[in-house]
Amino acid sequence: MAEPILNDISHRRFNLLRGSWVLVSPHRTKRPWQGSQETPSRTILPSYDPECYLCPGNTRAQGQKNPKFTNTFVFINDFSAVQEDQEEYRPEPKASSLATRLLRAESVTGKCYVICFSPSHNVTLADMTPAEIVPVIQTWTNLYTAYLSPASPLAKHANAPTTAPLSNGDAMTPHHQYRYMQIFENKGAAMGCSNPHPHGQIWTTTSLPEEPGLELAQLQKYNREQGGAHMLVDYAETESKEKDRTVFENESFWAGVPYWAVWPFEIMIVSKKHRRALVDFSAEEQIQLAEALAEVTRRYDNLFETQFPYSMGIHQAPLTGSKDEIEASHFHIHFYPPLLRSATVRKFLVGYELMAEPQRDITPEQAAERLRGCGGELYRTKIE
Amino acid sequence: MAEPILNDISHRRFNLLRGSWVLVSPHRTKRPWQGSQETPSRTILPSYDPECYLCPGNTRAQGQKNPKFTNTFVFINDFSAVQEDQEEYRPEPKASSLATRLLRAESVTGKCYVICFSPSHNVTLADMTPAEIVPVIQTWTNLYTAYLSPASPLAKHANAPTTAPLSNGDAMTPHHQYRYMQIFENKGAAMGCSNPHPHGQIWTTTSLPEEPGLELAQLQKYNREQGGAHMLVDYAETESKEKDRTVFENESFWAGVPYWAVWPFEIMIVSKKHRRALVDFSAEEQIQLAEALAEVTRRYDNLFETQFPYSMGIHQAPLTGSKDEIEASHFHIHFYPPLLRSATVRKFLVGYELMAEPQRDITPEQAAERLRGCGGELYRTKIE
Ligand SMILES: O=P(O)(O)O[C@H]1O[C@H](CO)[C@@H](O)[C@H](O)[C@H]1O
Ligand SMILES: O=P(O)(O)O[C@H]1O[C@H](CO)[C@@H](O)[C@H](O)[C@H]1O
Repeated sequence: MAEPILNDISHRRFNLLRGSWVLVSPHRTKRPWQGSQETPSRTILPSYDPECYLCPGNTRAQGQKNPKFTNTFVFINDFSAVQEDQEEYRPEPKASSLATRLLRAESVTGKCYVICFSPSHNVTLADMTPAEIVPVIQTWTNLYTAYLSPASPLAKHANAPTTAPLSNGDAMTPHHQYRYMQIFENKGAAMGCSNPHPHGQIWTTTSLPEEPGLELAQLQKYNREQGGAHMLVDYAETESKEKDRTVFENESFWAGVPYWAVWPFEIMIVSKKHRRALVDFSAEEQIQLAEALAEVTRRYDNLFETQFPYSMGIHQAPLTGSKDEIEASHFHIHFYPPLLRSATVRKFLVGYELMAEPQRDITPEQAAERLRGCGGELYRTKIE
Repeated sequence: MAEPILNDISHRRFNLLRGSWVLVSPHRTKRPWQGSQETPSRTILPSYDPECYLCPGNTRAQGQKNPKFTNTFVFINDFSAVQEDQEEYRPEPKASSLATRLLRAESVTGKCYVICFSPSHNVTLADMTPAEIVPVIQTWTNLYTAYLSPASPLAKHANAPTTAPLSNGDAMTPHHQYRYMQIFENKGAAMGCSNPHPHGQIWTTTSLPEEPGLELAQLQKYNREQGGAHMLVDYAETESKEKDRTVFENESFWAGVPYWAVWPFEIMIVSKKHRRALVDFSAEEQIQLAEALAEVTRRYDNLFETQFPYSMGIHQAPLTGSKDEIEASHFHIHFYPPLLRSATVRKFLVGYELMAEPQRDITPEQAAERLRGCGGELYRTKIE
């Protein structure tokens, strides 16, 4: 049960997963808003757009032609943030020993993919049924499996259902050993997305990025200190009992607003059992994950009856790592949506948040209550 | 001298001050942009706006009347994010020991101020002369001094010039001991600012927020490991010699794009000598800081000939802390501006950045070169 006093006093909550704090100001929700407004997206889109570089059969920026795909389609990002092959970096001797100590860089190589979730230009995860989302999960699993280190304890047990091997031969023969695969989706113009065709991205790098690195350290610490217990198993169990922050759950997954949420309607989907990565899921668990994804995204759209913008990302075991790291990893998905009060008023994480500490106004419990209340049919379907 | 290879390869740079990494993708600058565009702000504003709650003589949201101030004006934020007085928080016994371990909150109290930089509705720091900016620095110093713990080694030496005591008696008689004072400015609608009247904020809390906390730990570590040397003294010296990332410098301050910058045109202003906080500055140093602020903000506006949005914040010694913490602290200012390519195209720090690691395209050296090149008169003045 939530403590009622936390609805009234300014306080901080501890983010177990990052080991950091968040400032909560529940008394501040009455603040009037005179600032900038978001433009809600046009909701009437064709199911095929001849100008879209992601639609089946169309030609992309650099001349390649998309196949006539029927569920998902993966291709190499035409403007990858990391290069696969590049000149080797041998730091030059610096002008002074101070410069050597203070100015540190290291090379990163990797590979970036784009994944279309559907051939239809005008759907989103919120419009898709769990059965239609399963192939997305299987495609993610497929890519993750292809990049797993053969030495990883995960590789031996990787028998989760995947889609057929990708048509693009290149995608399936990584010739470097990468450390981490970040699967994510930016949805909506407010989150820097430039194309409404439903798609996500996958950036795979030789480095373990900051955020999963921070989380992994906390997960390992908990596992060590609590005699082998898994933090997110314990957390999902606790939340499932407390109920205040739960938005949706099924047998395998808990979905809710984390106790330490930063974004107004932030949601985390957590596997209730200890699952290290996508490859650990059975066919049944894949269906339940698809259901959780459908429930979360549909509720988001229903909340303000709009295409709800967000960034979504999967955190799971690194592709290669120590046995300890792999075993302490725990599959979960973060949703970071910016909207605060309506389809046009967002929360800005700016001055204080950037310089000092993330700050939120409505409490996670209030956010969860509203999201619990808007399940059911997608608002767009009802209108039609 | 910068290493030319870092203009071509994907790499990471280490942020000394936070102890974290940033991904740099210099090869990716050619990416076309089809996403959302910012609306550049109207540039024609009156010098007095009867509707503005910050203009001299006007009435604010909750009925108080602003005095007819002539340089700066400070008042308590009508919607403070932290409360000064509130019910005490005594965590209730939780339902289970798991809940106790996983769901952690603590009370925070504090005080939030708004500071108007000028009586004129239509100026910004970029329009103000260093002599006009000095009162802003003195007002910050004034507030910082008022909240300094009498036990702090800083209190004894606090003889920096300040403005006259604030008219608002309350502001000068804090009755709680606070730990940290975060001074910041959000400028422009893109950074969540809802009123163009030049103003900043000051949030003072019983907690040491995350960001200054992280930095302080790194500063202390360096100080300890390098036999008492100060990281930012060494850093400013190195940058001043390397020149590639310098935008402006005078005798007391270095201003440039940090080696590990995240935002495209991020700038840090660093005191060259070891100065722990505002109270350490002499009158001459205050003038030089004002000059650095004027140079940075004017160059920003000149870069894309627009009112350049940013969040700006001061990091300095905590109001109270161990002798070690106070002595390791080093005064510096961060500017985090979102624009990337023009007055309307910003960098989105979204999916990968939120889930994995901050990522940038143009290198800090390229950004600094462009900012060095746009000194001189403010573009708006030239047009008139
Ligand atoms: O207090 P303001 O300027 O209205 O609000 C702005 O700055 C605050 C501090 O960075 C943020 O918490 C708000 O989200 C933002 O809109
Ligand atoms: O690759 P996209 O979708 O064009 O780009 C978007 O997502 C990237 C990964 O989060 C960000 O680096 C970009 O700033 C953003 O605009």
